Amino acid sequence: MEDRPIKSASLQHYDIVIVGAGPVGLMLSTCLARWGYRIRHIDNRAEPTPTGRADGIQPRSLDLLRNMGLKPAIMAHKPARVYEVAFWDPPRDGRGIVRTGTWASCPSFIDARYPFTALLHQGRIERVFIADLDKNGVQIQRPWTIKGFKSDEKADPEYPIEVNLEHIDGTQQDTVCAKYLFSGEGARSSIREQLGIRITHKDPISHVWGVMDGVVKTDFPDIKMKCTIHSEHGSIMVIPRENNMVRLYIQIASSTDPDWNPRKTATEEEVQASAKKIFHPYLIEWERVEWYSVYPIGQGISDKYTIDHRVFLGGDACHTHSPKAGQGMNTAFLDALNLAWKIHAVEAGFADRAILTTYEPERKEVAETLLSFDNKYAKLFSQRSPAATEVQAASKQTSAQEEDNEFVKTFKEACEFTSGYGVAYKPNALNWGPDHSAQSPLIHPNGTKLRTGRIMINADVTRVVDANVVHLEQEVPLNGSFRIYVFAGKPSITAKALNDLAFHLGDKRSFYGSYLRPDIGSVSHHETHNPHSLFFTICTVFAAQRSQIEISRDVPDLLARYRDHVYADDRWDRRVPDAAAAAHAKMGLDQEKGGVVVVRPDGYVGIVTSLVEGSGTVTSLNEYFGAFCTKKLGETMAQL
Amino acid sequence: MEDRPIKSASLQHYDIVIVGAGPVGLMLSTCLARWGYRIRHIDNRAEPTPTGRADGIQPRSLDLLRNMGLKPAIMAHKPARVYEVAFWDPPRDGRGIVRTGTWASCPSFIDARYPFTALLHQGRIERVFIADLDKNGVQIQRPWTIKGFKSDEKADPEYPIEVNLEHIDGTQQDTVCAKYLFSGEGARSSIREQLGIRITHKDPISHVWGVMDGVVKTDFPDIKMKCTIHSEHGSIMVIPRENNMVRLYIQIASSTDPDWNPRKTATEEEVQASAKKIFHPYLIEWERVEWYSVYPIGQGISDKYTIDHRVFLGGDACHTHSPKAGQGMNTAFLDALNLAWKIHAVEAGFADRAILTTYEPERKEVAETLLSFDNKYAKLFSQRSPAATEVQAASKQTSAQEEDNEFVKTFKEACEFTSGYGVAYKPNALNWGPDHSAQSPLIHPNGTKLRTGRIMINADVTRVVDANVVHLEQEVPLNGSFRIYVFAGKPSITAKALNDLAFHLGDKRSFYGSYLRPDIGSVSHHETHNPHSLFFTICTVFAAQRSQIEISRDVPDLLARYRDHVYADDRWDRRVPDAAAAAHAKMGLDQEKGGVVVVRPDGYVGIVTSLVEGSGTVTSLNEYFGAFCTKKLGETMAQL
Repeated sequence: MEDRPIKSASLQHYDIVIVGAGPVGLMLSTCLARWGYRIRHIDNRAEPTPTGRADGIQPRSLDLLRNMGLKPAIMAHKPARVYEVAFWDPPRDGRGIVRTGTWASCPSFIDARYPFTALLHQGRIERVFIADLDKNGVQIQRPWTIKGFKSDEKADPEYPIEVNLEHIDGTQQDTVCAKYLFSGEGARSSIREQLGIRITHKDPISHVWGVMDGVVKTDFPDIKMKCTIHSEHGSIMVIPRENNMVRLYIQIASSTDPDWNPRKTATEEEVQASAKKIFHPYLIEWERVEWYSVYPIGQGISDKYTIDHRVFLGGDACHTHSPKAGQGMNTAFLDALNLAWKIHAVEAGFADRAILTTYEPERKEVAETLLSFDNKYAKLFSQRSPAATEVQAASKQTSAQEEDNEFVKTFKEACEFTSGYGVAYKPNALNWGPDHSAQSPLIHPNGTKLRTGRIMINADVTRVVDANVVHLEQEVPLNGSFRIYVFAGKPSITAKALNDLAFHLGDKRSFYGSYLRPDIGSVSHHETHNPHSLFFTICTVFAAQRSQIEISRDVPDLLARYRDHVYADDRWDRRVPDAAAAAHAKMGLDQEKGGVVVVRPDGYVGIVTSLVEGSGTVTSLNEYFGAFCTKKLGETMAQL
Repeated sequence: MEDRPIKSASLQHYDIVIVGAGPVGLMLSTCLARWGYRIRHIDNRAEPTPTGRADGIQPRSLDLLRNMGLKPAIMAHKPARVYEVAFWDPPRDGRGIVRTGTWASCPSFIDARYPFTALLHQGRIERVFIADLDKNGVQIQRPWTIKGFKSDEKADPEYPIEVNLEHIDGTQQDTVCAKYLFSGEGARSSIREQLGIRITHKDPISHVWGVMDGVVKTDFPDIKMKCTIHSEHGSIMVIPRENNMVRLYIQIASSTDPDWNPRKTATEEEVQASAKKIFHPYLIEWERVEWYSVYPIGQGISDKYTIDHRVFLGGDACHTHSPKAGQGMNTAFLDALNLAWKIHAVEAGFADRAILTTYEPERKEVAETLLSFDNKYAKLFSQRSPAATEVQAASKQTSAQEEDNEFVKTFKEACEFTSGYGVAYKPNALNWGPDHSAQSPLIHPNGTKLRTGRIMINADVTRVVDANVVHLEQEVPLNGSFRIYVFAGKPSITAKALNDLAFHLGDKRSFYGSYLRPDIGSVSHHETHNPHSLFFTICTVFAAQRSQIEISRDVPDLLARYRDHVYADDRWDRRVPDAAAAAHAKMGLDQEKGGVVVVRPDGYVGIVTSLVEGSGTVTSLNEYFGAFCTKKLGETMAQL
């Protein structure tokens, strides 16, 4: 991002050294490579994952991949799509198994664009990221490993970390300097070890799992569904995959077994023999086994995700758990995304270094929820089979009364969590809350349904310049910028408020005017997302029909420069069928007076404020950004 | 498809020789290559279209490309999407231009999956087909041309055509034998010429057009919309393109001009100067011109599309017209599709050779409609500007009264036509009508909204085996098979009718039992579309919730073999908000008793019949297929 001073003249300098090219390392690398950082990325495997491993992409991750433009490449592999989960148990009387229920994996009370889990071999997913990295000039160095590192901010405040790298055959070594070091090494993280960070085991129970990917021939009716099968012969989890493949998870041993041995194993044939018994009276035969593995796994969580906010851990290096909930890769993606934009905000000169301290609490709490969820989820079913009516009720929008039902509550939490929409970051400098230093009374207007620290609500709108119907939440690509959504209500009512907003944004000491691009005078007129500042993209949404909006008349110049980000809130939405302006209504913003929503670069709501005449709106946003940006903000009367 | 007898021992034998690798030739080649035919495909250009030419893909063509699995590759190029058309005219008082109206290019009264036109450079589209052909072992031979051909069915009834091919530099020649020859050569078709087929000019007026693709800088607000601009300085059509490009069409001369000269031309600079005047008071400047061309074009239509039903013409070889309606490539695609499946049905041994005689009347009428539409469309606007309320009314579902308004009627026809959904093939052996030889009283039950010769109505359903929500009309890929949709109503009511249907389909002399695969005993259990017959794919749709359907209990074996084609009609649809079974309701079929719909391999409805107990349903379908298949159909009591 800036000219690099050569301090250790003989050593190569990088913004970041990333160790491990699994989902977490690849997501971090891909984000930072797109935003122009210099990356050294190594992996100790000779090639990407050839078979097996993680394979579930949750709805929230699909949103993210779409936002990065990577979803079409993933979907081109035709992943299996899981919309429902089926439960099979022994019948009350008799032997074998019967279906005792099904439920939606992402029921309609969750407003998801893609209400399903996509299942695809991890190697295919990795290669989509690797291809994108290649476009941005980053190649993964394989098979290389990290031998050690030292960090000394006094000796070199800019590139404090020296990292020793080595080819795994020991024939080549390299020492490089970096601003950051990231461990995406998986559960056995050497970086975590060198830092002396310990793993806490939340649940003392460990398990040995067998997992088998293959093509089967069976008359079991739900072989293309995700299934949990309990039988007198043991339990199995069925997960459909691309290309007619099926993944089976079988628990081989548990530390609660009387003869527990974490090194207990089972052959491919033994697992197939067990599976045949569990599936009885249905028949199952293997035509081909693509991958088979047995591994012990315990629930563990890293005590720290970083010590000095220069060396970070993410993904399996921080949290290990059973594979059942299909959360590993998704949690890894979101760890990386969370860290990526914060490093960018700091290194690009926008945010205080202190925002890096929010990475650990935000992501560690998600990991803790994941681990406790893992248990809750199991109990939910072992206690009793829910009645079909309960599942049906729970799948829909429910009244406050119904929410009191413990089952419905746990079910909803489970669905929100597994879909990825349950993440709720707690208040901090980035996620406004009552204790935030921003205290303007305009903040968090009555009625808003947006919650800070949670994902922005989905909405369809019509883009004014080309009349395209678009997903508003997808309109700003993952460009590392904060997204300022100006819900502008009715143009006739908000005309002055909108002009005042633009006027005060244009102030040189506003959060916006303080961080203009140095090259602002030579930006191409085709630049759609960052014409003025690399830290913000502004979208303006009117509660009006597209044909009633004339950009040159209704939109102040500063906002009109984002021509491709002016929208009409004129699409009908089934969730708010009577609303005249569905997007405003879904956000819980006044359909006449609007409001302003700041969304973090990773898609989570930072703050919501009223849109008012005068300087109040910008003042409240100055207060918000002032809590973590590098400059002192405030108003002067100067204009852009 | 079959072992080839070597009659002319020294010559290569092909199922078809295709001349020209534009849209029509490529679509034909791609279909036939997928279905296993031996193809010689030549083109006289050294490479695919480098710039310019056709670029508009209409909603119906997007459906077709999706059905072929080619849509993602097209959309990966990020085509511009046109949802609305804007009209600009001189103001009543004063100079310059003002927007006088906009309308949806595919309004909501058309039930389109993709209600927009995608605009993408023809070369990109060609390359998507070429890549698919390559996967199926077909390479286009370039730059080669056809020198002549002769056809003699007596000398060789199987490969009657001898074709002489030559490299365009004259250094290499080749003579090959073929069952069919196809001209996709464009307006100047040497094959048409050799056959002595004449062109009839429907409209005696010719025009000279200038067309320019480029990147512009402008303050014209609708530069990302499709626009028709009339000004005192002339007329222009604006069409947005991928990568910030804009296409402008300018009429340079017309045969109605007093100084008409079909060789009149204009330089790039002259056209830009004209455009600047027409856009006034808006400014427009070119940053880059990618393609500029001037060409005279008249409306013409080929008198015949074939003479002997061995040598066929399609695409621009059959019809030329102004580029304004963006119909050229779309009409070409549908010409090819229409011919492809008919050749397949004949050559695979299912249909009488006589069905080839339906190609010309079906497609020629479309071309004739296109040409007369071209004029109507122009007149619609030159007469008067429609009131905004009229356009609004016309865009919605309208009452019979409103339909009487001439403007509304023409508008609707225009939208249906340009979207590709207006094609309505007339009754013939394939499209049932009252004069068809099938006369069972079960045919065309009261209330059905499906019309034979038109595309099947769209509907969402839930696939039973994996709970995936799918587009029913897309569920059978373009596999050359007839699609039998069994709308099975309520399982409790139709159980016997469904069993009877399966029983009589299983009869060896039914249309179904008469055309089983020769390899039926060794078909893989993974085969989802053609387990029994290459000529049919069966889908069964119940008017029930997915969770209520148990395939092993509710679906007779013959239908259950199509496990992946059993659906629950349980998705809500805004167009029939009160229906319990939306797909049944949209088709206008009884939600309790169902009905059977036969859809031709190209997606057009062939026949609709009631689903009844006994043999009646299969008898009526035997009557239908008996009108054009190679075997005598009828019932015996034998079973599959």
